[in-house]
Amino acid sequence: MSRYWSDIVHRLTPYVPGEQPALAHPVKLNTNENPYPPSPRVLEAIREELGDAGESLRRYPDPTALKLRETVAAYHGIRADQVFAGNGSDEVLALTFQALLKHDKPLLFPDITYSFYPTYARLFDVDYRTIPLDDAFAIHVDDYAVPNGGILFPNPNAPTGRPLPLADIERLVARNADSVVVIDEAYVDFGAESAIGLIDRYPNLLVVQTVSKSRSLAGMRVGFAFGNAELIGALNRVKDSFNSYPLDRLAQAAARAAYQDEAWFRDTCAKVIASRERLAAGLTALGFDVVPSAANLLFARHPGYDAAALVSRLREKEIFVRHFKAPRIDQHLRISVGTDAECDMLLDALRDIFSAYVS
Amino acid sequence: MSRYWSDIVHRLTPYVPGEQPALAHPVKLNTNENPYPPSPRVLEAIREELGDAGESLRRYPDPTALKLRETVAAYHGIRADQVFAGNGSDEVLALTFQALLKHDKPLLFPDITYSFYPTYARLFDVDYRTIPLDDAFAIHVDDYAVPNGGILFPNPNAPTGRPLPLADIERLVARNADSVVVIDEAYVDFGAESAIGLIDRYPNLLVVQTVSKSRSLAGMRVGFAFGNAELIGALNRVKDSFNSYPLDRLAQAAARAAYQDEAWFRDTCAKVIASRERLAAGLTALGFDVVPSAANLLFARHPGYDAAALVSRLREKEIFVRHFKAPRIDQHLRISVGTDAECDMLLDALRDIFSAYVS
Repeated sequence: MSRYWSDIVHRLTPYVPGEQPALAHPVKLNTNENPYPPSPRVLEAIREELGDAGESLRRYPDPTALKLRETVAAYHGIRADQVFAGNGSDEVLALTFQALLKHDKPLLFPDITYSFYPTYARLFDVDYRTIPLDDAFAIHVDDYAVPNGGILFPNPNAPTGRPLPLADIERLVARNADSVVVIDEAYVDFGAESAIGLIDRYPNLLVVQTVSKSRSLAGMRVGFAFGNAELIGALNRVKDSFNSYPLDRLAQAAARAAYQDEAWFRDTCAKVIASRERLAAGLTALGFDVVPSAANLLFARHPGYDAAALVSRLREKEIFVRHFKAPRIDQHLRISVGTDAECDMLLDALRDIFSAYVS
Repeated sequence: MSRYWSDIVHRLTPYVPGEQPALAHPVKLNTNENPYPPSPRVLEAIREELGDAGESLRRYPDPTALKLRETVAAYHGIRADQVFAGNGSDEVLALTFQALLKHDKPLLFPDITYSFYPTYARLFDVDYRTIPLDDAFAIHVDDYAVPNGGILFPNPNAPTGRPLPLADIERLVARNADSVVVIDEAYVDFGAESAIGLIDRYPNLLVVQTVSKSRSLAGMRVGFAFGNAELIGALNRVKDSFNSYPLDRLAQAAARAAYQDEAWFRDTCAKVIASRERLAAGLTALGFDVVPSAANLLFARHPGYDAAALVSRLREKEIFVRHFKAPRIDQHLRISVGTDAECDMLLDALRDIFSAYVS
């Protein structure tokens, strides 16, 4: 307790991001980064922005990130005023909680989902209620047909990777016209269907995306929200009351270039998807139960081995996967899809660990 | 009014940043940017982080910006746990409002000051009271000896540039032990005395700085707070409930390098200070009343010409200065200090405008 802290600070439960190990060559399968580098065009764009002397860096960036929003809007076939750009989708989600999800009725989200959601809710004093996934970790949209001040979930869901068909999402959005439905599509490019195509028809739909996963730019912190101008306007009002310039010049240039190399994007996603299916088969062969995934991660449990123990044995081998000490999922591992070579190192390590248990 | 907006969104008055004109070669003296580029070491550091293929960009940055904080702490002779790093000092200030300045008693800040402060207060529902500057735009710390939930002002003050002696600040901090005093030192390197040296003695002192002005990195969005670990801890708790990774990899590398080139920093500041004094003399010779400034800006009024009219005449000549339509200062111009050549273009343009009025 500190007399200097605002009341809210005492009540927070800060989010804990996955570890960034300070090792030379960890097998890092714990934060859902892309195993492939960004498009070469990203480097060109950054170098162009820098010029010979970094002259432009002395100037504030465009506070509205207009060129970036225009590029992304054109990519998705929508208008720039339907796009909000923020400092990673985490900032976009935080501003969304503040701008669109704080109402008298509770916000609804799944009991098993991105663990930042309850943290945002506490920070902004948003009343919320969790809706349980079924035993196979599936979302059923009919479970959300209760009075609410907003509905939020990722598609595919985190940390499970399990996708929901677009028809289910449209049904939910159509039925829920009085509050905002936010679909967090951080992982959508690895095999799920985006809801961006629905924003023109549904004024209560907001779709959130990021360049951190499918565009290999976790290091540059750029995320987006897509929705009608009324929803985007609320985000802009809050953003311009918080931080006018959240995206630096190089981040704007990098993200823009990433959308200008469609071939690189498609190729990278295809490689990750192929590696995911290969890894899922490998884990299944080792006896894991693997949740069907449309993300760049697998959520899996082994009936014979304690998850926390596995994580710590893998860690000794400098292989990092994520584990959540949370109800219903504390026996699961969340494994980011790496290159085939990294996935093989994980499978080999698991085989080693299992054989040591047996002997 | 929108049924989808949270209540707070309706009540906001977003901050309006200075215009970023889309002209090839504006004389841009409206947002207090540094007229000189950042140190060449900044470019080297960015290029090193990028490597040959931008490989590191696929990975999340260090969420704690530890290396950067260590460098800045060493520079100031303090510890890394006394340093908080955020996405520009605007984000640092926003998080400070939420974490340390929201209490039952009102926050105090000057009636004429950085115009983002009342915007933050509305966003976070912080009760505040403004304390008038005197007629010469000076702060008197004795005016702040009233019950409060925090005290905040820039030193030098914005938009006036007028500095306060460190002895006055220490007196205020010492007398105000029950709440946090925040000194916003965005402009301190151009001639005022920093209060960072006091943080070990006063647990209620928080000092905020930025790389946007004196280190020529407005385009990269990095700011800091300095204070004891209890205050920094509050900022970290709020930051980690809002956005884990606010500083991208290139921003961390760039800011760090800027602190590693002391000679460039000193030389740049000295040139800006010399140009400021030269510009102040030029404006005075044209009949302006110029507020004594220790910042990279001058706050000046001309008794014979309406400020808004001057701004628009200058704008026609592609010369941009800032004007605030606010009580007490609506006849002032806030002029960023450019190169001597840019300052001369401003003085020439003013001479032209004045001679046209006369004829």
